[in-house]
Amino acid sequence: MSMLKNVWHAAAWSAEVADRPFARTIAKEPVLLYRGTDGKIVALNDTCPHRFAPLHRGNIVNGEIECGYHGLRFDKAGACVHNPHGDGTIPKSASIKAYPVVERDTLIWVWLGDPALADERKVPDYNWLNEDDVYDFSDGHVMHMPLAWDLILDNLLDLTHGAYLHPDTLAPTPGLRTETDVRRDGERIYSLLSTYDAPPPPIWTATGAATGDVHVDTWLEMRWDAPATFFLDVGVKPTGGEREEGNALPTVHIITPETEETSHYFWKMFRNFNRGNEEIGAIMEEFATRAFQDEDRPMIRAVQERMGGRDFWDLDPVLLPSDAAAIQARRMIKKMLRDEETARARAEDQ
Amino acid sequence: MSMLKNVWHAAAWSAEVADRPFARTIAKEPVLLYRGTDGKIVALNDTCPHRFAPLHRGNIVNGEIECGYHGLRFDKAGACVHNPHGDGTIPKSASIKAYPVVERDTLIWVWLGDPALADERKVPDYNWLNEDDVYDFSDGHVMHMPLAWDLILDNLLDLTHGAYLHPDTLAPTPGLRTETDVRRDGERIYSLLSTYDAPPPPIWTATGAATGDVHVDTWLEMRWDAPATFFLDVGVKPTGGEREEGNALPTVHIITPETEETSHYFWKMFRNFNRGNEEIGAIMEEFATRAFQDEDRPMIRAVQERMGGRDFWDLDPVLLPSDAAAIQARRMIKKMLRDEETARARAEDQ
Amino acid sequence: MSMLKNVWHAAAWSAEVADRPFARTIAKEPVLLYRGTDGKIVALNDTCPHRFAPLHRGNIVNGEIECGYHGLRFDKAGACVHNPHGDGTIPKSASIKAYPVVERDTLIWVWLGDPALADERKVPDYNWLNEDDVYDFSDGHVMHMPLAWDLILDNLLDLTHGAYLHPDTLAPTPGLRTETDVRRDGERIYSLLSTYDAPPPPIWTATGAATGDVHVDTWLEMRWDAPATFFLDVGVKPTGGEREEGNALPTVHIITPETEETSHYFWKMFRNFNRGNEEIGAIMEEFATRAFQDEDRPMIRAVQERMGGRDFWDLDPVLLPSDAAAIQARRMIKKMLRDEETARARAEDQ
Repeated sequence: MSMLKNVWHAAAWSAEVADRPFARTIAKEPVLLYRGTDGKIVALNDTCPHRFAPLHRGNIVNGEIECGYHGLRFDKAGACVHNPHGDGTIPKSASIKAYPVVERDTLIWVWLGDPALADERKVPDYNWLNEDDVYDFSDGHVMHMPLAWDLILDNLLDLTHGAYLHPDTLAPTPGLRTETDVRRDGERIYSLLSTYDAPPPPIWTATGAATGDVHVDTWLEMRWDAPATFFLDVGVKPTGGEREEGNALPTVHIITPETEETSHYFWKMFRNFNRGNEEIGAIMEEFATRAFQDEDRPMIRAVQERMGGRDFWDLDPVLLPSDAAAIQARRMIKKMLRDEETARARAEDQ
Repeated sequence: MSMLKNVWHAAAWSAEVADRPFARTIAKEPVLLYRGTDGKIVALNDTCPHRFAPLHRGNIVNGEIECGYHGLRFDKAGACVHNPHGDGTIPKSASIKAYPVVERDTLIWVWLGDPALADERKVPDYNWLNEDDVYDFSDGHVMHMPLAWDLILDNLLDLTHGAYLHPDTLAPTPGLRTETDVRRDGERIYSLLSTYDAPPPPIWTATGAATGDVHVDTWLEMRWDAPATFFLDVGVKPTGGEREEGNALPTVHIITPETEETSHYFWKMFRNFNRGNEEIGAIMEEFATRAFQDEDRPMIRAVQERMGGRDFWDLDPVLLPSDAAAIQARRMIKKMLRDEETARARAEDQ
Repeated sequence: MSMLKNVWHAAAWSAEVADRPFARTIAKEPVLLYRGTDGKIVALNDTCPHRFAPLHRGNIVNGEIECGYHGLRFDKAGACVHNPHGDGTIPKSASIKAYPVVERDTLIWVWLGDPALADERKVPDYNWLNEDDVYDFSDGHVMHMPLAWDLILDNLLDLTHGAYLHPDTLAPTPGLRTETDVRRDGERIYSLLSTYDAPPPPIWTATGAATGDVHVDTWLEMRWDAPATFFLDVGVKPTGGEREEGNALPTVHIITPETEETSHYFWKMFRNFNRGNEEIGAIMEEFATRAFQDEDRPMIRAVQERMGGRDFWDLDPVLLPSDAAAIQARRMIKKMLRDEETARARAEDQ
């Protein structure tokens, strides 16, 4: 699917970027990230305007990136500040694009589109990631996925797939009575899937949040913010009880498109029970990794290959009640893409 | 080369398909095969109409395929019979294509085109494969070949290549006097290559059908049925003798296109001599595998790469007398493709 | 970049070609080379006109190439001289293109374009390669590079990259005062880079041409002949001394395009000091291989990927003084390509 530019894309976990060059392609733009001498994140286009060498192959010299091919240097605003050749005159055209960038809640966000529209207040809120007093956190993961971003969204917005793809990891026993509820709040969609009075899914017994022979209620509430940021609130509680009595294992999922066909999948899982127990933490990560890498990824990849690059709607999909959230999200994204296209065309006309 | 739809394509050996999902792409269509509760073969399009997941990633439940992504179920006629979501209503458009299918002579044949034209009497006759009283059989092999189907046909229809490609396996000493004879009978072509009074080719001495120091006559008679099914009757006999006195090592070759550039190559070899000797059987398979995989395949692949996707006739090939059978076959196939195209255009006009 | 046909392309080192078939793709043409019975090089198009088999998969029989698929034979002029099929009549159209070819100075050069224009006097002069009395030579190397030929030219014509890419191998300490001087002589360009009174680069101390604690002057003079043949005269001398007093380590670099995106990179290094010492020879080769394979190649490849198939000028490159030689060369090549195009169009009109 096409990719948006006028949005905040998650570019990296804070811990990934230090004072050395770090490169990641986002929506087909090669982005260079590093920390300047003041520790603040610098985000530049990763291409030297001289001979098109990727700048991340060079070195940071006094907080400035030096091209590793012929030595031009650029500052954090993208201006060329050093030319080692001839009399050292700096050509007027020698500059690179600097991107608006925000570091918040252990994540780094960049804005690839029109800088005039980059509103820091619109950076997705992941304040949970700071709640060290409530949760134990897994590492921040980034999986490089050979998957189109919209197909990952479809997967995350219809959690009924769990019964078929994740019976050995995350999901309740197939065939259980489940209730789903989808509601929309502006550019945000909530999709709730509940089960009642049933044996707990494998991840819950493995992490000690439930015991296998005691029935529980579960809740999986996915919160989606356009275009591709998720917070999954998930937990088990005594049958008939309240969420407050339960054990929770929430996950952050953020999808950043790399190209039309590949994505960066950021995730972090956290729990409010059995805290301080590292063994439980390792089990939690192992279950999540298995589910995303070994269960979701091959299925979504197979879907992508079967679609063969054709548009989702052109394939005339059969729609089911469980598609409600994903279909609403697709329509919102389609509108955002159209609006961006219109704005771009208008700008070019002027 | 383009691929035919209104023909019986070999889809699998009977032994390959049980009551679990089995997938094979034929003429670019993803086909799902399995045995129903009655043991009969079911052949369906292997794509769920909901989210386009390959159905073979799911499970067979009571003789019906259940999609492994969100759980829709389809019966052997392709109708959706179970929707686990919402109130369980089955959307009207939720169905998949079921293909006419025939299991005969240890092979499974499917018809991808217009079902009204699927005439079971036209399934190629491989009754030899049932003659357990006459022959010892190798396993049924399927080689996945990175080769266009028409180039494999060219190879099989001009057996003079043996002297150059197979001197160490199947073929008589290069430079021998050979006779070739091509005759046509409707949509069937016979191509006979005979050698006289010469040392036997390596496979014959290795399997004990001949001894190295006694001269023999050999016959290789290829029978081709349009578009891509072969029976190679091949044997050695005493110099000047009759075929009835000889030892025979016939082979079935069937080519099923996967895409324009790749094919499934089905083969089985059998012999009427040294029966019951498993060691001889193993030698026979080893010679055939070497010849097809290590001698034919790289040469045909090299030809395909050299042709670079261009049409055979556009390349203005030099024609030799030994091309007679292959050229006749190419003309027949071209006409079949044209007829199919005409029928399709007419159907769309109506 | 597009590729020239009306030029002498280096096809192989003499030592690579014997009386067996040798294949190399040059400017997208598959070329077959072998030595005839008289030891002279034969250069033919490597495609059989019968079924398009690469001829190099066959055998040389009495100085003639026999196709390995069905046995047609061709002489050194490309005429079919033997047809083993039917009555042996040779079809009139059965011939292949023979290329003008010259073997000189341990190199084999072919002319792919209009044979009427193939002037042997224009074969690039590499007489140095015969000067066994002055130099010890490395082997003749050919590196297959996933690199467009023009990007390798850019690399070789701007030696200032050494300070950034080769500080551990070939280049002087970064940040040294260097002088560059570019001059043009017809279709030849000289680009001189000098350093003065500085510690010697690593390759010089490793080969014993200099000692680490004694300052030297260095010269690197690249001579380029259109379109892609180089002679790099490089040496160290006592500070303030003359080249005649110095130690020299010249290199031949010749770039032959394989496709628009891949190249054959021929090189040979030689030295006039520490002669007869095989260990020094091995060190010399190791430094050069590291520099070309591990330092230049990944950077040029990264540039090529970043350019994404777009034209160099369309990308609006920033030009620096150090680009002078490469830019002049690009303009000359552009004119040569245009002239060839014009000649081809004129020939087709007639």
